[in-house]
Amino acid sequence: MAEQSQAGQGVCLVVGAGEGVGSAIARAFARDGLTVCLTRRPRHLDTLERLAASIREDGGKAHAFGVDAREETEMVELFDRIEAEIGPLAVVVFNIGANVWFPIVETTTRVYTKVWEMAALAGFLTGREAARVMTPRGRGTVIFTGATASLRGRAQFSAFAGAKHGLRALAQSMARELGPKGLHVAHVVIDGTIDGSFARGRLPDLDERLARDEVLKPDEIARNYVWLHRQGRSAWTHEMDLRPWTEAW
Amino acid sequence: MAEQSQAGQGVCLVVGAGEGVGSAIARAFARDGLTVCLTRRPRHLDTLERLAASIREDGGKAHAFGVDAREETEMVELFDRIEAEIGPLAVVVFNIGANVWFPIVETTTRVYTKVWEMAALAGFLTGREAARVMTPRGRGTVIFTGATASLRGRAQFSAFAGAKHGLRALAQSMARELGPKGLHVAHVVIDGTIDGSFARGRLPDLDERLARDEVLKPDEIARNYVWLHRQGRSAWTHEMDLRPWTEAW
Amino acid sequence: MAEQSQAGQGVCLVVGAGEGVGSAIARAFARDGLTVCLTRRPRHLDTLERLAASIREDGGKAHAFGVDAREETEMVELFDRIEAEIGPLAVVVFNIGANVWFPIVETTTRVYTKVWEMAALAGFLTGREAARVMTPRGRGTVIFTGATASLRGRAQFSAFAGAKHGLRALAQSMARELGPKGLHVAHVVIDGTIDGSFARGRLPDLDERLARDEVLKPDEIARNYVWLHRQGRSAWTHEMDLRPWTEAW
Amino acid sequence: MAEQSQAGQGVCLVVGAGEGVGSAIARAFARDGLTVCLTRRPRHLDTLERLAASIREDGGKAHAFGVDAREETEMVELFDRIEAEIGPLAVVVFNIGANVWFPIVETTTRVYTKVWEMAALAGFLTGREAARVMTPRGRGTVIFTGATASLRGRAQFSAFAGAKHGLRALAQSMARELGPKGLHVAHVVIDGTIDGSFARGRLPDLDERLARDEVLKPDEIARNYVWLHRQGRSAWTHEMDLRPWTEAW
Repeated sequence: MAEQSQAGQGVCLVVGAGEGVGSAIARAFARDGLTVCLTRRPRHLDTLERLAASIREDGGKAHAFGVDAREETEMVELFDRIEAEIGPLAVVVFNIGANVWFPIVETTTRVYTKVWEMAALAGFLTGREAARVMTPRGRGTVIFTGATASLRGRAQFSAFAGAKHGLRALAQSMARELGPKGLHVAHVVIDGTIDGSFARGRLPDLDERLARDEVLKPDEIARNYVWLHRQGRSAWTHEMDLRPWTEAW
Repeated sequence: MAEQSQAGQGVCLVVGAGEGVGSAIARAFARDGLTVCLTRRPRHLDTLERLAASIREDGGKAHAFGVDAREETEMVELFDRIEAEIGPLAVVVFNIGANVWFPIVETTTRVYTKVWEMAALAGFLTGREAARVMTPRGRGTVIFTGATASLRGRAQFSAFAGAKHGLRALAQSMARELGPKGLHVAHVVIDGTIDGSFARGRLPDLDERLARDEVLKPDEIARNYVWLHRQGRSAWTHEMDLRPWTEAW
Repeated sequence: MAEQSQAGQGVCLVVGAGEGVGSAIARAFARDGLTVCLTRRPRHLDTLERLAASIREDGGKAHAFGVDAREETEMVELFDRIEAEIGPLAVVVFNIGANVWFPIVETTTRVYTKVWEMAALAGFLTGREAARVMTPRGRGTVIFTGATASLRGRAQFSAFAGAKHGLRALAQSMARELGPKGLHVAHVVIDGTIDGSFARGRLPDLDERLARDEVLKPDEIARNYVWLHRQGRSAWTHEMDLRPWTEAW
Repeated sequence: MAEQSQAGQGVCLVVGAGEGVGSAIARAFARDGLTVCLTRRPRHLDTLERLAASIREDGGKAHAFGVDAREETEMVELFDRIEAEIGPLAVVVFNIGANVWFPIVETTTRVYTKVWEMAALAGFLTGREAARVMTPRGRGTVIFTGATASLRGRAQFSAFAGAKHGLRALAQSMARELGPKGLHVAHVVIDGTIDGSFARGRLPDLDERLARDEVLKPDEIARNYVWLHRQGRSAWTHEMDLRPWTEAW
């Protein structure tokens, strides 16, 4: 299958290569043979460099970029630079978006806007720039990380659900427009607590839960992103959910 | 029924009382006995004043406000002023959001942001301020105007679908939070061409279509907004769709 | 508006005019001026005759029919007889479908099949016969009663959710096919406990809840069915939900 | 990961191992090391035996069963016999359900019922029996094949959409009930034309379309079923879609 030969080649950009899912996705694509480019905001560049170094120690190829994904000029430059200096992008993953919750009357305009900028505007810039460089080649995979709040609103979730709904609309609009142009655009709905520093601070019994697979393991999530990239174009998935076996939904 | 006595009393604010659906909603609530407050951007204040005058000529009570609904301070002041000078808000309708369509790579950050500011950020400010003044009274109706793009993305619709999805997430989040506090939050999905100047410019056979009821008539749409406000609280609708009988969907 | 003149005329058939919602729908359409035809299974014909008599005492026109709505020949005969002897059907409401819940391994084939026959097969026969008599006239309203289980499955709900999902698919398929032929097909999603004998047996505090409007009142539900019938065809609703203000969803 | 050791072991039952997708799923699990049990209706047993022989020639383990999946006693016996004589079921795939389309008034009760029996009742029996044998072991994968009609109704699709909606409700109800008991229940929405004898009869340019990957290839579909079975239980997918890159949706 022609499509499968894509796997293991080219460059993978992970926008938002944070310490949980983003890192795991980067490691998974690097293990699969892709050169991975990682971004986080400039103030986290040190941590990101350590991730890139760690991937290289494991035999992978990795580059770290301190970028504010909400800034158009930074994002345009990032894509141009990767394409010029590192190689053609085969996969772009957008993985930014932190949850916040406030009663509606306590939700400030600043919070509402910032959550949208991070989860939706940055996703738009990522998706648009990916389309810009991939469409002329007629191939490429773009994956957006979603959440339960991508599918439904919830008390105190107007900001986060609004941004994640917007991101899902972007993913769906791009898939319908760009599928026939050869781009595989996918949206992964992650439903449940993910192992990581955030969960560690909130769940005193996290280790026990992990031992029982009751929280999402970033490596397990990441395997599915690689899988999506490997799907043959006669049978592409646009949306799939991921949740622990014990999750109530 | 206690709830029904609300109908015909109090103040109704229509944020985005444009020439099509917004005007019709204002007229419908005015005919129902409510004092209507209308907003459009300051540059349309003349037209809006004429609408208010026309409603008053028909025996209604109407006030026009030139407001940029994307500006937090203007919106906070608007709600404070209406509550102080005109009366307690019984109904707030949010009706802003113009469609645009562009291929994803031609969608500028400016367009993406502006569409979101008009359809989602302004909706958030409207909803939040409505919640602020209504929640202490334990009653009130908040209605958001949605579209087909509220439910699914579509080629070239990343900006508009993103904003409308965000607005729907707001409506749903508010409904779940504020229903148990006595507020009726609803979302109306309008699917199809609406009679008005936009349609008139695009459909040469508009009059024939109107005669056959094949385009949405603003007055018919508006009747449903009044209906939602009149529903008893033992059986509230959160979401309903409206489309012409001939519409393919 | 031409469509509105339909309201208050013609015949309304309520398939499943049970003691809660079905009765209330029948009374509401009778109060609106329509001649109502009521069905329940033959063994409940006595109760149904009392409902018809009560509607007539209130000045309405009502006829009771003992019919098994799962039986094709009975349903064909019912529609033929009403059209021939009583008058042209303007509204048909399908309101059958009792909830059951069992763990999947304890769900017998008999239960699974019976629940489907009542909620889906009988709905199909009702919808098809309504289409048969209404389509040649190019007008008519067909309303199906749905539930939360129409929208999503749930532990122990495989039979009920399966049947209600099937009914919703019928309503949506009919709406897309028959809308352009002049028929208004709608689906009402009732979400929450409904006042009636079933609730009375389960909720010791039902009266207090009723006083606070925390359970769905059949008369409030019924008003919305009449409203759907009255909508002008330039703006028809296919689906709306109804739930008490306090309902968690 | 403990879950992954399941892959390549145990028995896989494919209910509805027809010549397209069902065969491909059987071959894929056989290649993965599972012993595959295949069913079709008794009149197709000869063809099915040839499929089993072909899988054995390729080094796999395969058994053919002529079974009417709508018959409870046959299904109970099938599961008992496989568990007793062949081994514990690790995967059960339900893959029956032929499309038909008729205007609603031309849809006979016989057609409506038969389509439901094949796509929903047989799915229920398959799912229930899988739950019966798997739940005591606390592990197992059950996958249902869905279609676009699982998600929305469409003109002339009342029978097929009704049955497929019912099957999806079953899958979702089972997933919510049985996930916490260790069973992975998934639903795959296949959207588009699938290569096979049905497509061959309808699309004169099928070979060209296949060369461009514009129709779903059964082997590509099947890879995703194996993938679902291999997912670790900390991140299970309940629903995913599959469609060709060129499909309009």
